[in-house]
Amino acid sequence: MKTILTRKTIRKYTDKPISEDLLNRLLSEAERTQTMGNLQLYSVIVTRSDEMKARLAPVHFNQPMVTQAPVVLTICADFRRTTAWASFRKGHPGYDNFLSFINAATDALLYTQTLCNLADEEGLGYCYLGTTVYMPQQIIDILELPQLVMPVATITLGWPDEEPPMTDRLPLRAIVHEETYSDYTSARIDDCYTEKENLDANRHFVEINGKETLAQVFTDIRYTRKDNEALSKTFLDALRRQGFL
Amino acid sequence: MKTILTRKTIRKYTDKPISEDLLNRLLSEAERTQTMGNLQLYSVIVTRSDEMKARLAPVHFNQPMVTQAPVVLTICADFRRTTAWASFRKGHPGYDNFLSFINAATDALLYTQTLCNLADEEGLGYCYLGTTVYMPQQIIDILELPQLVMPVATITLGWPDEEPPMTDRLPLRAIVHEETYSDYTSARIDDCYTEKENLDANRHFVEINGKETLAQVFTDIRYTRKDNEALSKTFLDALRRQGFL
Repeated sequence: MKTILTRKTIRKYTDKPISEDLLNRLLSEAERTQTMGNLQLYSVIVTRSDEMKARLAPVHFNQPMVTQAPVVLTICADFRRTTAWASFRKGHPGYDNFLSFINAATDALLYTQTLCNLADEEGLGYCYLGTTVYMPQQIIDILELPQLVMPVATITLGWPDEEPPMTDRLPLRAIVHEETYSDYTSARIDDCYTEKENLDANRHFVEINGKETLAQVFTDIRYTRKDNEALSKTFLDALRRQGFL
Repeated sequence: MKTILTRKTIRKYTDKPISEDLLNRLLSEAERTQTMGNLQLYSVIVTRSDEMKARLAPVHFNQPMVTQAPVVLTICADFRRTTAWASFRKGHPGYDNFLSFINAATDALLYTQTLCNLADEEGLGYCYLGTTVYMPQQIIDILELPQLVMPVATITLGWPDEEPPMTDRLPLRAIVHEETYSDYTSARIDDCYTEKENLDANRHFVEINGKETLAQVFTDIRYTRKDNEALSKTFLDALRRQGFL
């Protein structure tokens, strides 16, 4: 897994397809990831057809990766299969509730990340689309997801056709707490963020966004209170319709 | 990452400590995992002290790994640090809502799984404790987690002192759907689950639990409707108190 040290998000792919054998091997190996009670509370919708990519694209803000990538994977928190299994086996499934969503989403995301690590090591490039949680109902409709299935992650996957620079990360001391949480004073925030803020790429990012600070680009433009509050409602509505709330 | 093919959950550890250098290297390498807007919406609480392990143990149903492992890691969805940063930088953070919890929990879980895969490759053993989401408020209190910080995963980590057999997994066809979701008929459930149900280990598991089917062990004993509904309320209450709902 030395590839993790140079991992980059890849948004441009060559025309080379991903063979079914390779994709299935990676999907299968990722199944070794730990899972709640060994129930594997996830499912993967594989999109290869141009028609389905075109339908999914607007939901992901028409990011070009969705139509350009040979494969798009939508990973779902899934209690449907386990519930069906139990129903056919004289069980009494009770998974139409929020905790079950959290458990299934956890399984799905852990599975997703092992899959990403494996793809990376294979030399494939991928982009994790954060847009999945913005318009879940549209994804549910397009992929025909039944009750107790909720999309939680989308990965576009292909052979890399770009070599983007590595992005920065915070120093480890910014994210680690010994024994108990030690809160962030102004001095500690300076210590954790000054290096990041001073990078040329980030200074440029602030400038082209017409803001004074890097943090403002996120809070005032990219991830605003207004959007977050509207999308929270959208997500909770979808959770309710899928039977998890 | 060939280690993924033989991955097992490890619950018994030798007395050998995990050096701070090694732990920090793994925690740091895992930071390469993709993250929303490069905000790294997670934090890790490192528990090494016997006193803190003893306090955490009951929350995790006194599973012996918690006190026996040299290191316990509690990984949290964290919008606190980003909010503090923005506040000190003239930003207008609006992350006290459900979507922000989902985004931060996603970041935290993806980070956790890269860390698990790195630990595995290093020869370390780990156990992912599903109990984290059962009594979040107690964990919040013990680890002194402020608003906008929510525990989502716990890992016990140490050098393996057991060689458990590998557990089974469903065939890939059970979890993969081509283009759209294809629902589970009785015949498909048989196709996906019969092999699992016929394994000696699982037959034995059904027997010692005094049940007729494997599914019943899960629905009627391990993950019951009654528990799930009570724990859903507990989790939502904690989310609300942490400011995410």
